[in-house]
Amino acid sequence: MTSTATRSWWGWGSTDQALPDEECVALAGMVPGLPDRPRAVPDVRDLVLPPSRVGPPPSLPVTTDPAARAAHAYGKAYRDVVRALSGDLRGAPDAVAHPRGESDVVDLLDWAGDAGVVVVPFGGGSSVVGGVEYRGERPWVSLDLGALDQVLEIDRTSRAARIQAGAFGPALEAQLRPHDLTLRHFPQSFEFSTLGGWLATRAGGHYATLHTHIDDLVESMRVVTPAGTSESWRLPGSGAGPSPDRLFLGSEGTLGVITEAWMRLQDRPRSKASASATFPDMTAAIAAVRAIAQAALHPANCRLLDPGEAALSGASGGQPVLVLGVESAAVPVEGRLAELTDLARAHGGVVAVADGGRDSAADAWRSTFLRMPYVRDGMARMSAVVETFETACTWDRVEELYAAVRSEVGAAVREVTGAEGLVNCRFTHVYPDGAAPYFTVVAAGRPGSEVAMWDDVKTAASEVLGRLGATITHHHAVGRDHRPGYDRQRPEPFALALRGAKAALDPAGILNPGVLLDELPAR
Amino acid sequence: MTSTATRSWWGWGSTDQALPDEECVALAGMVPGLPDRPRAVPDVRDLVLPPSRVGPPPSLPVTTDPAARAAHAYGKAYRDVVRALSGDLRGAPDAVAHPRGESDVVDLLDWAGDAGVVVVPFGGGSSVVGGVEYRGERPWVSLDLGALDQVLEIDRTSRAARIQAGAFGPALEAQLRPHDLTLRHFPQSFEFSTLGGWLATRAGGHYATLHTHIDDLVESMRVVTPAGTSESWRLPGSGAGPSPDRLFLGSEGTLGVITEAWMRLQDRPRSKASASATFPDMTAAIAAVRAIAQAALHPANCRLLDPGEAALSGASGGQPVLVLGVESAAVPVEGRLAELTDLARAHGGVVAVADGGRDSAADAWRSTFLRMPYVRDGMARMSAVVETFETACTWDRVEELYAAVRSEVGAAVREVTGAEGLVNCRFTHVYPDGAAPYFTVVAAGRPGSEVAMWDDVKTAASEVLGRLGATITHHHAVGRDHRPGYDRQRPEPFALALRGAKAALDPAGILNPGVLLDELPAR
Repeated sequence: MTSTATRSWWGWGSTDQALPDEECVALAGMVPGLPDRPRAVPDVRDLVLPPSRVGPPPSLPVTTDPAARAAHAYGKAYRDVVRALSGDLRGAPDAVAHPRGESDVVDLLDWAGDAGVVVVPFGGGSSVVGGVEYRGERPWVSLDLGALDQVLEIDRTSRAARIQAGAFGPALEAQLRPHDLTLRHFPQSFEFSTLGGWLATRAGGHYATLHTHIDDLVESMRVVTPAGTSESWRLPGSGAGPSPDRLFLGSEGTLGVITEAWMRLQDRPRSKASASATFPDMTAAIAAVRAIAQAALHPANCRLLDPGEAALSGASGGQPVLVLGVESAAVPVEGRLAELTDLARAHGGVVAVADGGRDSAADAWRSTFLRMPYVRDGMARMSAVVETFETACTWDRVEELYAAVRSEVGAAVREVTGAEGLVNCRFTHVYPDGAAPYFTVVAAGRPGSEVAMWDDVKTAASEVLGRLGATITHHHAVGRDHRPGYDRQRPEPFALALRGAKAALDPAGILNPGVLLDELPAR
Repeated sequence: MTSTATRSWWGWGSTDQALPDEECVALAGMVPGLPDRPRAVPDVRDLVLPPSRVGPPPSLPVTTDPAARAAHAYGKAYRDVVRALSGDLRGAPDAVAHPRGESDVVDLLDWAGDAGVVVVPFGGGSSVVGGVEYRGERPWVSLDLGALDQVLEIDRTSRAARIQAGAFGPALEAQLRPHDLTLRHFPQSFEFSTLGGWLATRAGGHYATLHTHIDDLVESMRVVTPAGTSESWRLPGSGAGPSPDRLFLGSEGTLGVITEAWMRLQDRPRSKASASATFPDMTAAIAAVRAIAQAALHPANCRLLDPGEAALSGASGGQPVLVLGVESAAVPVEGRLAELTDLARAHGGVVAVADGGRDSAADAWRSTFLRMPYVRDGMARMSAVVETFETACTWDRVEELYAAVRSEVGAAVREVTGAEGLVNCRFTHVYPDGAAPYFTVVAAGRPGSEVAMWDDVKTAASEVLGRLGATITHHHAVGRDHRPGYDRQRPEPFALALRGAKAALDPAGILNPGVLLDELPAR
């Protein structure tokens, strides 16, 4: 388990990784018009929390400690970071629960149901969509699963493990490593997010193709609901009715609390190869990526950086760059890499094959990738407005979407901030029938107005995605921030069905109300 | 659309493919103790149907024609065929509806909801689990989607097509072929089943690995429910809440009527290669298949025949045979086949690589495969008891399951029939974490007692599957015949959620009651 001692209460990840002030100032040079020094980080001990409104029985592992409440007030969206930096903790939970095992989860839900207390499951707290922050009127408890962090059982024959939901990425991999196995699910939040969070939000992981979401890696799940505990059978495949797991995957804590899952594992890869290709323009690059995605070659990495993104990460001087990677635990992969680079060349790519499995563009990209959230926080302290949003659409609309987002979100940035901003893009995952573009927006904010400005940019982004039929989220989940876009996208009969399912499992409506579905009036 | 003129009303497929009497007699030699001549096939015009209890408005495309009602009375399970051969049509639908378009489906559901008439969606009618046969007390209509058989739209760029649910396999492929595209979903029932049926039952298809079920080939779905029409967005991937499509996939007509779907297509394969390998015993063969399934090589075919199955299909003299096939539209596949056969050899396999893409074991198998249901019907006419059932479990239990099923179902056959029967097995689909064994049982029945004997064998099979945690169905669906096993397997909270979803979408409870969920008392 990642030590919580060094976890930042206001920003991303570890406090010792946060950008020093001088680096914040240097970064701010990227966007003209920002203040000349970063906003100070308040001492959490100085901040005022509203009085706690809950009184759980002493037998339950619930605390009203202010530091715990502050650390569970928000996720890690830009708007969360800015609100925390401003010292606004009005919406903090009334208490934080730290169940020591599944029976505590059952007891907590029983108590909360009787007491009319809202329960919001909390894994690593890395939500960037308002997924762990209740915004209603009832008293609420943040249910932190962090103590349920064990790999409980390993089936080497079937390559699967039973893992508790509160296990963070590094802890989970550390427990699998002695068995020469790996889950190989590496979202950007890997260090600071948990298996349960990945499952509840349908997280996107390591693989750029094929098993892009964690959904496919699930063999069975165990979920505590107010109406009882659901455990699906361990099955490699089944056709017995609608998949129970697929209802809980992406349910974001509204139907139950995921406590453990049997996960499909991989052998650790023995051979890896990577290459990068530069393209004259995005049209050629997109055609190459589409050809690769439709060739059923399933590269582990297939990440297209647009000119702005490539320049920022140092991967190219301003041309689109495609980073390709293949890996296998069973067979050599050089032949497969050659098949991929042949396709890139056939579409105008200039290919650089990495020496000895290392590739400078890929390396440059990876270190930038893991640093990005800290940079975001440093920029937030400089009052820059930073937003990342991701989507997916079918290939027939990919180029139009790319152009429309850059144009319309760029226009929104100009209108909101009065200046040009950056709107960069990379494709994080690709499919035979489409791609998942991920956009980064950086603009000059005005101190005190950052959240309102961010909200306006977000609204413009959601509007163009919805108009072009692109999903409101490919792997960041819905939470509360994406509700308008999600409501537009979701078929109304499915909303009815989901409400019906929720009413059956959570009749008191205590589970993460406001996420996915509107909060119903209290009974 | 497959011509209905030649469709058998009592048995599988086309009447012109049914086994002649002398072939039935010859086949019966396989099982000692059967009668010396086949039961006659009754003339459907001689059979008595109960009076129809419905009177839909003349504007609706509903018929009470006896031949139509007889042809929609049952699916094509063994027990269906035997009951039809015995002339028992007491449970036939009161009427058959043939909607001409989606608006007819809407109008039919509106009328049925008001009139309290049960509606059972009917695609090709090839259900082998009692999926299209209402067994309750209310009047009912079989809703035959066969006229909705068009490919409506093709997106060549994204390789996807919008296809109506009533399209049979051959008609669907014929409409895609001019575009050099294929769905490549080839269940055994391919000729006699429809896209809508495949989706409603999560059918298993062509691919032995990776995209084993049709689920993964779905881009979006359109479903008419009594509460409105649900249409999901066309997306290559999404993380926006639980997947709407995954709730309707496998819903077997209980939540709505699937009218069309955008399906992900493939380029037609340009290179194919196949091989077969014989093994000294099932332990070695299973180890080889597991190694292949866990190597992420994704062969299109990976079908293991046990000694009995291999002997019956002429693929070997009595050793386990593994049939391997690879295919690609983009790259040569010989290297991939070699990787697979290397793994087979490493586990004791004796490999025969097919010349010029043709393999005699594979060919022998394929023709036997498509003939099997006709053989089953011929055997049924000879009063043999024939059952096929399929399952899936994780690798740690595969050998135990194989042995236990053969032993316990074999014992049940002896007890029920007083003689030895055949219990053969093949693995139809394999996964990194497990396999999907498919069993065929053939035993000597007693004329007049076949259905009761079949039910006893089925019960024994379901019992051993459930005890060992193997799914009650990998791709045949639940229907009514698999309900006890399904109820045991399904987590109770998921059953509550599904009932909640159904109550929201089908408040009058008219949609295929008894499948997946118990029929609720009429309002």
